[in-house]
Amino acid sequence: MNPTRILVAQGGGPTAVINQSLAGVVLEARRHAGIERIYGARHGVRGIVNEDLVDLTLETAANLEAVAQTPASALGSTRDKPDLAYCQKIFTTLKAHGIGQFFYIGGNDSSDTVRIVAEEAARTGYPLRAIHIPKTIDNDLMGNDHTPGFPSAARFVVQAFAGANLDNAALPGVYVAVVMGRHAGFLTAAAALAQKYPDDGPHLVYVPEREFRMDSFLADVKAVHQRLGRCVIAVSEGIHDADGTAIATQLAEKVERDAHGNVQLSGTGALADLLCDQIKTQLGIKRVRGDTFGYVQRSFLGCVSPVDQREAREVAEQAVQHAMWSGRDGSVAIRRVGNYAVDYVLQPLEAVAAKTRVMDAGFIADSGNHVTEAFRSYLRPLLGPDMPQPHRLRAPAVTKVLG
Amino acid sequence: MNPTRILVAQGGGPTAVINQSLAGVVLEARRHAGIERIYGARHGVRGIVNEDLVDLTLETAANLEAVAQTPASALGSTRDKPDLAYCQKIFTTLKAHGIGQFFYIGGNDSSDTVRIVAEEAARTGYPLRAIHIPKTIDNDLMGNDHTPGFPSAARFVVQAFAGANLDNAALPGVYVAVVMGRHAGFLTAAAALAQKYPDDGPHLVYVPEREFRMDSFLADVKAVHQRLGRCVIAVSEGIHDADGTAIATQLAEKVERDAHGNVQLSGTGALADLLCDQIKTQLGIKRVRGDTFGYVQRSFLGCVSPVDQREAREVAEQAVQHAMWSGRDGSVAIRRVGNYAVDYVLQPLEAVAAKTRVMDAGFIADSGNHVTEAFRSYLRPLLGPDMPQPHRLRAPAVTKVLG
Repeated sequence: MNPTRILVAQGGGPTAVINQSLAGVVLEARRHAGIERIYGARHGVRGIVNEDLVDLTLETAANLEAVAQTPASALGSTRDKPDLAYCQKIFTTLKAHGIGQFFYIGGNDSSDTVRIVAEEAARTGYPLRAIHIPKTIDNDLMGNDHTPGFPSAARFVVQAFAGANLDNAALPGVYVAVVMGRHAGFLTAAAALAQKYPDDGPHLVYVPEREFRMDSFLADVKAVHQRLGRCVIAVSEGIHDADGTAIATQLAEKVERDAHGNVQLSGTGALADLLCDQIKTQLGIKRVRGDTFGYVQRSFLGCVSPVDQREAREVAEQAVQHAMWSGRDGSVAIRRVGNYAVDYVLQPLEAVAAKTRVMDAGFIADSGNHVTEAFRSYLRPLLGPDMPQPHRLRAPAVTKVLG
Repeated sequence: MNPTRILVAQGGGPTAVINQSLAGVVLEARRHAGIERIYGARHGVRGIVNEDLVDLTLETAANLEAVAQTPASALGSTRDKPDLAYCQKIFTTLKAHGIGQFFYIGGNDSSDTVRIVAEEAARTGYPLRAIHIPKTIDNDLMGNDHTPGFPSAARFVVQAFAGANLDNAALPGVYVAVVMGRHAGFLTAAAALAQKYPDDGPHLVYVPEREFRMDSFLADVKAVHQRLGRCVIAVSEGIHDADGTAIATQLAEKVERDAHGNVQLSGTGALADLLCDQIKTQLGIKRVRGDTFGYVQRSFLGCVSPVDQREAREVAEQAVQHAMWSGRDGSVAIRRVGNYAVDYVLQPLEAVAAKTRVMDAGFIADSGNHVTEAFRSYLRPLLGPDMPQPHRLRAPAVTKVLG
């Protein structure tokens, strides 16, 4: 086998551990005599067509390890989705630089990019090994038990809701927080792991796998508020009505779409504000507050699951090993074995590309407004063994003198 | 001296370390033979008038230490502000339970409550020692170098902006995040400590100590965006125009006020959305995203400054020691000595009560859109020695073949 050069890039929304995968590719590739040069493309496929490459062969191992601990795509990312003409520009660059292996770290849109590139390479006879390395906080890749990036984002959501629940207990009222997840409710559902004591929030959890009805929502909130004098609610940004129209866009005058046709849901507090307004006006509850976790939930420096870090590294190591020895393109996937351990497989790209996995029905309570114990069991080991825990006073009441 | 019973309560917005102060009062009070019972009031002064007390004498030390690590007011909080009639109810409860010392952990509204209670006690001849223990994420208490709660909230803001800056570098555009702080810009200014590399964000920082002009703001954003191709902006929720009208309420149909007359600024994404809309429409920039950090910045479980933890404990220990030996009411304050060390003093309540400290002029850049090196030096030691650091790739560019 002639020595080859490899190219690695990062696509889609950043995560807390996407640079673990980058470090994994580079450090694993260095072990192989058959790989003579390791290039990185700046801002995903866009960097390839623009011939905007960096030479990762010249990175120190110490700095790669430091970058691995840093959230967000160190190479830069893109939302570009290549068509045939775009692919041909990609091959022009790959050919000019003698690239024989392409690794793309990304979600389902990025895996579709790898599929298109791999198909075009095969069709046009360009010799290329193309491997997709999974990452997405949405946890929505087919064939994966879970995806790198999700556990750390879930950990942020759990820690945020644990704190918000305590805040809400201290100053009672209704608190609504909107969590990322366009079609899959995994990240919103993670909020449920913030419940330690029986009356802890989130008391209600709404995911996009179920139709959102405003009347049911308001009845749910009213019931919890009457029972506890307060209510903490987790809502996915992707909740929608029976027609599939996002609640977030019902009041929007114009909607913004990305290159993949996705409507912009993040980066605005409109959905939280809309729900708060409904609770105030329809239920007459005075103290109603809404937060939108926004970009912080995927990028916060210093909130990461150690399980997620290790797995994000391993999927990349596996990707390089498959590229060297398996003789086929594909997408590395995480499978759960035992409780808790994982194994990795190489899936065909078509099994993942542009498909969306949603929550199993068994993860959502029949009421449609919370998760099941099965979901808690699924998520708990992913968060890591070092999750902070809230504690309560147990001091008994002082007997009233005045009555 | 006859044995006395003491009462501790927590008022105002929760913080990450307010329970350190609670534990500090209880554990310090246990050392004194002159204190026979330690009561806590549920939900601040409201718990006193409702005779809703718990007996903290019966808490284990282990649980008090666990609660001390938990954010938000473990006793519950309130926004109630006592008037004369309210105070008389307070004295009725204090008398019925033989309370001789009252400790109130809170901000400037809470210190005003302590002042009113202390004055009414003196006027009506009720024998009471009343001590205010400082806490507020706003860092706006007079006579304090800084206040317990601020360093941990600042740490959250720094870690959030460090991550948001990396996210914004990966997927360039304009990012606006709104930070708490009605009149004082300290917490918003803290965002500046997220800058490690010269081109890191936040590139612009707007605090309520300066008049906010939309035209200047847009010109600032345009200049940064032209220079770097991206822009990260920290904005205080309290920014206002020349007339003092909050920008957040300029478009609001109705405003909500609390018992202290404060307009509701948090718990809504309206200000971020308004600024994003201006940037999109006036500057024609396409990718513009806004977050509002909301309640997470003061309650997030697992983001705390060890310096803040220690000081929040110490102000409470000092409060009990002053109550036992100083023979006067007052408010414990933190003074900075050296670099970095602190000392504590007991200020007269009138020096703190209902007053608001704002940022020193020397902390704000002349441009009005960023902080000075003096502010960075002021804040850095408060965040703690274990701040996570972002790292970048240093890989050199690959020489272009195609050109």
